[in-house]
Amino acid sequence: MEIKVVKQILAWNEDVSESIRRLTESKHVAIINIMGSPGAGKTSLIKAVISGLREEYRIGVIEGDIAGQIDAEAIDSLGIPVVQLQTDGACHIEAMSIEKILPSFDLDALDVLLVENIGNLVCPAEFNIGEDFRVSILSIPEGDDKVAKYPLMFATTDALVLNKYDMLPYFDFDPVRVENDARDINPRVEIFPVSSKDNSGIPELLCWLRKNIDKKIKTKREGPV
Amino acid sequence: MEIKVVKQILAWNEDVSESIRRLTESKHVAIINIMGSPGAGKTSLIKAVISGLREEYRIGVIEGDIAGQIDAEAIDSLGIPVVQLQTDGACHIEAMSIEKILPSFDLDALDVLLVENIGNLVCPAEFNIGEDFRVSILSIPEGDDKVAKYPLMFATTDALVLNKYDMLPYFDFDPVRVENDARDINPRVEIFPVSSKDNSGIPELLCWLRKNIDKKIKTKREGPV
Repeated sequence: MEIKVVKQILAWNEDVSESIRRLTESKHVAIINIMGSPGAGKTSLIKAVISGLREEYRIGVIEGDIAGQIDAEAIDSLGIPVVQLQTDGACHIEAMSIEKILPSFDLDALDVLLVENIGNLVCPAEFNIGEDFRVSILSIPEGDDKVAKYPLMFATTDALVLNKYDMLPYFDFDPVRVENDARDINPRVEIFPVSSKDNSGIPELLCWLRKNIDKKIKTKREGPV
Repeated sequence: MEIKVVKQILAWNEDVSESIRRLTESKHVAIINIMGSPGAGKTSLIKAVISGLREEYRIGVIEGDIAGQIDAEAIDSLGIPVVQLQTDGACHIEAMSIEKILPSFDLDALDVLLVENIGNLVCPAEFNIGEDFRVSILSIPEGDDKVAKYPLMFATTDALVLNKYDMLPYFDFDPVRVENDARDINPRVEIFPVSSKDNSGIPELLCWLRKNIDKKIKTKREGPV
């Protein structure tokens, strides 16, 4: 019984996800789904991306949290339009929530919408939220066995960010193992060793983000006004 | 519709959880539900508990994972009876799975069953699995805002283990904030700063575990054979 219900929700979620993609296609907005464990560094990475791309793109943020609005306040203080999505206990964001929130943004005045998903390596991977691409974060202190243990998250992502890379000397973490595990299940994945603390690796990540954002919004940027 | 279904599952789960408690009551076995984020150090803590308590108690382990059996192999190599529970993508363990697995153990030859839940700060907190008490792990690298952000996990736990405490100098983590946040939502919670690496704090945790295990199994230990 349970499986049947989950499938119904997933099918509904897929429909809504597709309809979000059609809308953002027409509005030339790229949605990026940012996922990772609690404390992997999603908010810090979002701040680094805002700082690196805000001169080139008009950025908005949806902050997903079980409860509270700590992260949304941090983004708001940067002068970036942000909506706090409180899932009230739910462990992932669904496309239905994104669809409800989108009218809060002026999509004609936006190029990129960063969505910080719930801190969770499991359920968020199952639900498309109308994103154009996914960025999954694994931080060094979490350990090098996480790709093997949470395969769906890393099989379905477009970029794998190895965050807190400056902590490598202090943890027993083999980046080669992670890279091999990730490429085994996801040969096209791009991997970025990054430290949001000292900004190392961030420029490479920004280049990749630019390329993928432009793929979605290029018709606007290149076409006639 | 979705909420109704979840409630049905939760109600069913509660029934099974209660029936597990009655069974383990009669068998004098204490079940401990160990939860935390991916990479918080659940398996390392379980190994430390095994090492510290195996002379006094007969210990078994259920290793919950989305996929794979890395952790179960590690426990098996210690000569401890272990069953790998693969949830096949599900983000938490349900009592129904524990009920199915229990016959794999000889409960008459067991005092303590440690259950390593799925790495996830959200969903596992909603599901009782027939446990006698809960131990939730928060590791220093995850950040000091996690109790505020994942309240149910820390409101429902009996012990909060602050793991990787040896990493405190390297992270911007305020233990006082975590302690205050935890006691605000859970005044009776016991908090243990611990490092599975250098064993600091482990003896205090073991004392607390002994006390709580004995509460459950004392009828066997003190009563007539």
